[in-house]
Amino acid sequence: MTTIRIGIVGLGRLGFIHASNIAFSLKKATLSAVCSLSQDELNHAARELFLPESSCYSDFKTMLASGKIDAVIIASSSAHHCDQVVLALEAGLHVFCEKPMGTTVKECHTIEGAVNKYKDRIFMLGYMRRYDASYRYAKEKIEAGDIGKPVLFRGYSVDPSHAMEGFLNFLPNSGGQFLDMAVHDIDMARWLLKSEPRTIYAMGGSFAFPQFADHRDGDNVAALMQFENDAMVFLLAGRTASHGYNVETEIIGTRATLRIGSVPQKNLVEILDSSGVRQECTQCFSERFEHAFIAELQEFVDCILEQRKPEITAYDGTRATEIAVLATESFRENKLIHLTEAVPIDSDGMIVES
Amino acid sequence: MTTIRIGIVGLGRLGFIHASNIAFSLKKATLSAVCSLSQDELNHAARELFLPESSCYSDFKTMLASGKIDAVIIASSSAHHCDQVVLALEAGLHVFCEKPMGTTVKECHTIEGAVNKYKDRIFMLGYMRRYDASYRYAKEKIEAGDIGKPVLFRGYSVDPSHAMEGFLNFLPNSGGQFLDMAVHDIDMARWLLKSEPRTIYAMGGSFAFPQFADHRDGDNVAALMQFENDAMVFLLAGRTASHGYNVETEIIGTRATLRIGSVPQKNLVEILDSSGVRQECTQCFSERFEHAFIAELQEFVDCILEQRKPEITAYDGTRATEIAVLATESFRENKLIHLTEAVPIDSDGMIVES
Amino acid sequence: MTTIRIGIVGLGRLGFIHASNIAFSLKKATLSAVCSLSQDELNHAARELFLPESSCYSDFKTMLASGKIDAVIIASSSAHHCDQVVLALEAGLHVFCEKPMGTTVKECHTIEGAVNKYKDRIFMLGYMRRYDASYRYAKEKIEAGDIGKPVLFRGYSVDPSHAMEGFLNFLPNSGGQFLDMAVHDIDMARWLLKSEPRTIYAMGGSFAFPQFADHRDGDNVAALMQFENDAMVFLLAGRTASHGYNVETEIIGTRATLRIGSVPQKNLVEILDSSGVRQECTQCFSERFEHAFIAELQEFVDCILEQRKPEITAYDGTRATEIAVLATESFRENKLIHLTEAVPIDSDGMIVES
Amino acid sequence: MTTIRIGIVGLGRLGFIHASNIAFSLKKATLSAVCSLSQDELNHAARELFLPESSCYSDFKTMLASGKIDAVIIASSSAHHCDQVVLALEAGLHVFCEKPMGTTVKECHTIEGAVNKYKDRIFMLGYMRRYDASYRYAKEKIEAGDIGKPVLFRGYSVDPSHAMEGFLNFLPNSGGQFLDMAVHDIDMARWLLKSEPRTIYAMGGSFAFPQFADHRDGDNVAALMQFENDAMVFLLAGRTASHGYNVETEIIGTRATLRIGSVPQKNLVEILDSSGVRQECTQCFSERFEHAFIAELQEFVDCILEQRKPEITAYDGTRATEIAVLATESFRENKLIHLTEAVPIDSDGMIVES
Repeated sequence: MTTIRIGIVGLGRLGFIHASNIAFSLKKATLSAVCSLSQDELNHAARELFLPESSCYSDFKTMLASGKIDAVIIASSSAHHCDQVVLALEAGLHVFCEKPMGTTVKECHTIEGAVNKYKDRIFMLGYMRRYDASYRYAKEKIEAGDIGKPVLFRGYSVDPSHAMEGFLNFLPNSGGQFLDMAVHDIDMARWLLKSEPRTIYAMGGSFAFPQFADHRDGDNVAALMQFENDAMVFLLAGRTASHGYNVETEIIGTRATLRIGSVPQKNLVEILDSSGVRQECTQCFSERFEHAFIAELQEFVDCILEQRKPEITAYDGTRATEIAVLATESFRENKLIHLTEAVPIDSDGMIVES
Repeated sequence: MTTIRIGIVGLGRLGFIHASNIAFSLKKATLSAVCSLSQDELNHAARELFLPESSCYSDFKTMLASGKIDAVIIASSSAHHCDQVVLALEAGLHVFCEKPMGTTVKECHTIEGAVNKYKDRIFMLGYMRRYDASYRYAKEKIEAGDIGKPVLFRGYSVDPSHAMEGFLNFLPNSGGQFLDMAVHDIDMARWLLKSEPRTIYAMGGSFAFPQFADHRDGDNVAALMQFENDAMVFLLAGRTASHGYNVETEIIGTRATLRIGSVPQKNLVEILDSSGVRQECTQCFSERFEHAFIAELQEFVDCILEQRKPEITAYDGTRATEIAVLATESFRENKLIHLTEAVPIDSDGMIVES
Repeated sequence: MTTIRIGIVGLGRLGFIHASNIAFSLKKATLSAVCSLSQDELNHAARELFLPESSCYSDFKTMLASGKIDAVIIASSSAHHCDQVVLALEAGLHVFCEKPMGTTVKECHTIEGAVNKYKDRIFMLGYMRRYDASYRYAKEKIEAGDIGKPVLFRGYSVDPSHAMEGFLNFLPNSGGQFLDMAVHDIDMARWLLKSEPRTIYAMGGSFAFPQFADHRDGDNVAALMQFENDAMVFLLAGRTASHGYNVETEIIGTRATLRIGSVPQKNLVEILDSSGVRQECTQCFSERFEHAFIAELQEFVDCILEQRKPEITAYDGTRATEIAVLATESFRENKLIHLTEAVPIDSDGMIVES
Repeated sequence: MTTIRIGIVGLGRLGFIHASNIAFSLKKATLSAVCSLSQDELNHAARELFLPESSCYSDFKTMLASGKIDAVIIASSSAHHCDQVVLALEAGLHVFCEKPMGTTVKECHTIEGAVNKYKDRIFMLGYMRRYDASYRYAKEKIEAGDIGKPVLFRGYSVDPSHAMEGFLNFLPNSGGQFLDMAVHDIDMARWLLKSEPRTIYAMGGSFAFPQFADHRDGDNVAALMQFENDAMVFLLAGRTASHGYNVETEIIGTRATLRIGSVPQKNLVEILDSSGVRQECTQCFSERFEHAFIAELQEFVDCILEQRKPEITAYDGTRATEIAVLATESFRENKLIHLTEAVPIDSDGMIVES
């Protein structure tokens, strides 16, 4: 059996999940190296994932040059994604990059350039919803024509309130709700509707946490877009869901409607007590998308072994980022954006504000 | 327009609901007289239902003889049902009798005798579930063959815990859970399955309230019966539902299953909060069957005007009582009862205990 | 008992429902007169509602002058609402007017003027959702602070596909989806959020029926508004729901979320068959709002008897119309509308297009 | 890292699932050998699970003696379980045995004897529901006292209709619905209620497939038991579910009720179309219990490594079998069984029929 030897950089919450999945849940893959700036994280990974010390790296380039790995997972902090993707491709490795692909449109373009240059390398982006069983089931039904012509895509991505305290430290560098949260829904809308936005109008507010306004952000934001095929797209991104991790999608068509996760239930238990009849909910991304995280990495491995490209491309990463940046712009300037107009981009790859 | 002039005896909780429905919600009917032993209840009814003092009676026979009414609703306490039904029929009136028809099988037989004697009078029993929109919808689907051959009928009738305190005063005279609660499910099973029980095995316990055991009853009881068409019937009757008034029915067939009220939701509001995603529940029979109580009286009035018999007969009342008595017997004696054997009935119409 | 004598003009589908409710389901009210241009409708009403011929009118003014009625229900076609409301108020009657109050903002202003002039008369508008048990339950929870600060109001009003054929005849005169369908959601948003819109961006498409585009309308339209309290409002109005009459509302707050009717279930029956586990849905407004139609008329009658004003005012009618007109404008011109800017109104009370 | 080397006997449907899970989804375990009488199954496993030919065995004893394995999974046909368990224990291996532990009570006793003799070996039974996330969640709530005192356990295990054709070949040797299907519910009832049955009354019918009656079995059977703690237990086992693989459990307590899988939904997609609002269902045990099958084997491996006993014992297997045999007896003889009476067992370990 050929197995792909994988290294991972970044052993934070999601990084460790990826590392565990490679070690224990993937077929035809081995966890061969881990890299982190934190010695604690390295020790923890070595112990839990049964790795020898020699497989633990504090320097990314050393890991790339070790000869021990065929592919690398980039799960470091967003600011490093662009450099690390390019370095890894240059080192001849296959690359799986966590979202966001880059923190600016310019970084995205840099990555796209590298991906196009090293065409024989597999490059894949961590938009795990595309590999979630429920989203795939919905996609199949749409492709089969079961819902008729798509009329409305509605996507909610709302983090649970209890995660707010941890988030507030990250707020100044978060890039805003559209880039940080809504990119997944933007990708879902493009994937399921097979079309691109024509207009965007966005808004938001600091309903519970005034700190968001200080960063020109909102604790809840929304956008309405019309796509080129006339389909309407409504997005809500926020951080104050009381019931749990609320990732919910609806696609209304002329013949049927699909809803995914409108009750983000934790499991199959229903409780009847003095509060009524209730279902408890998933409380974080790792609980909701536990199996999708495995499926996406398996797809990455299979693409490498079968020498085929993943469905999701670097362009998808750029596009979701561009749209999120435009939505942020619309929200901050309270204006309607027509995408047919040329979008002025500054030297940092950010949209020039008028 | 011909209207039926109706009198009612009994102005307790359900009696007052019936009186209000006659006064305000029925077509082709008028509330012409009310009768109660309680002057307070009479005053309250007069005021709320806009009745003159002359329409208020403290004596049942006087109301029957008043010439003011064509029909009478019997909503007095169970011990009076038998006498009052017979008196009303003898007085030439149409009769609607609340459940239970009688407190013993013998009383049921007496009523059946009177009903058969006064064949031109309409007699109807207050088994309101037969007039509930959801139960009727299920009945139509079963009749249409949609579920195939019935395999299992499951009926729960569980009162909410918060009603226990009020119930405990009534406990010594309640007749037991099977007679007091499960008769509705027994009627539903016979109505939907169109068959009769062949065997009965019942049991119960005093899970939360030891007082029940003192009266050879249980705060929750259950029975399993097999009907002559092989269909299996499982009943649960109890008084400790924490979430509300839990009347729930399931009919499993070889081709489909129907569930009625498995979430006894109060309304169309769904609440998402720290306890999860939940629906609040109906809390009492008057809330759950609000519209069924109107529909059954409307059917009574329409039967009178159209000179046709209601679907539900005095025999149905007798039969539900008999089966409930047998289930009580099975529970108390912990024995299996075969209904093909002759059932020994004593001079009070109760089954002779072996 | 004092009873209010009510006349009704318009005996179409909704008019007849109102007439029946007055005749049979209201307390302290009598149906004393009906008026229609159609002799068939008059005959039908006389027969079904047990009215003498002398209570049937083909001329509205004759009915007003008959001395038989204290109040009038306006359920005629929209074009007549304004004139009839004014005539009825001038005749000294209390008035209940079906939605839309007027077909133009100017008509709304005319009605508001008359209502203000005849202050001792009760005037009420037929926004029945305000009297639906589920919407009232949600309102109480919001007022009690249970959901915290409102973040998003989402309202869908989508007619079932099977009603399309009938609607197409009416399309040329419908006023468009925002005026015809979304006004209910606009009223709900104002009622539940207690705020007014600051910006509106609307869009739509002819996804299944190109005829809509011919009338500058869409078979499905959507709008995103931000209200003055920052709350965001998303509306969808359409006519292609495959599963039934889809009136669905969600109010997301910082502490809890409420959903009303997200499954517009027909009854309490759940069906398990080869298509899965399913609930059938309500198919028309009269089924979904059967009891709200009674409750709103009862409130009208009670307001008259108790000499108090209904919660809903003529201004609410004007405002919902204005907002619907602005949404229509935004959709047709593909532009963002800021409501803080003065809105230019032409001599017909329509917004002047720039 | 120490890893447990596992061999498996039986590569049918469930055997292959176990083999794949060991190969790809377990931590600290390796699939080291497979055994089957079918060369096709061996070839298929070798190819899909990347096993060398030398790891494939057609003889069970040869595999046991190979020195390649520390533990063995018994997933062969039921008739071989008893012999293979004993042989494996004698060979010094840890044993995981699929349900049923034995086909007779006598076989169960033989296994219990061997397990008790080889106390240092881990023995575990494949009652996977105990390792399903939803059942475990329910168990925790019950242990925490959240539901109060248990009143009723209701367990349904109904195979989908579409599986009937395949089943009919197996019918003559199936042992009947109680042994074949209801044992899982019997185990769940004992596990969740922590009590044992005192009485059993069972029944059944051949509602759709007369063939079952020929084998003194039913296509649907039911039983009502009372446990020693008074809790009531209702079981339904069948093979004609139209909507899917219907494994559904309810535990009603004096303070709350838990339902597990009352809608056995396939995924998080809800479909709104002309049949209403629906969820599609899981269609087989491997879909519903996909993750439980992994979790139980992981527990087996962890028990071996940590030298601790699994929660489920050989006695649990014997007890579930005994109760299923008694239920079968009650059904066939149409009699109530009191478990306090001595149960006469014949020389095959089957209950002596009176």
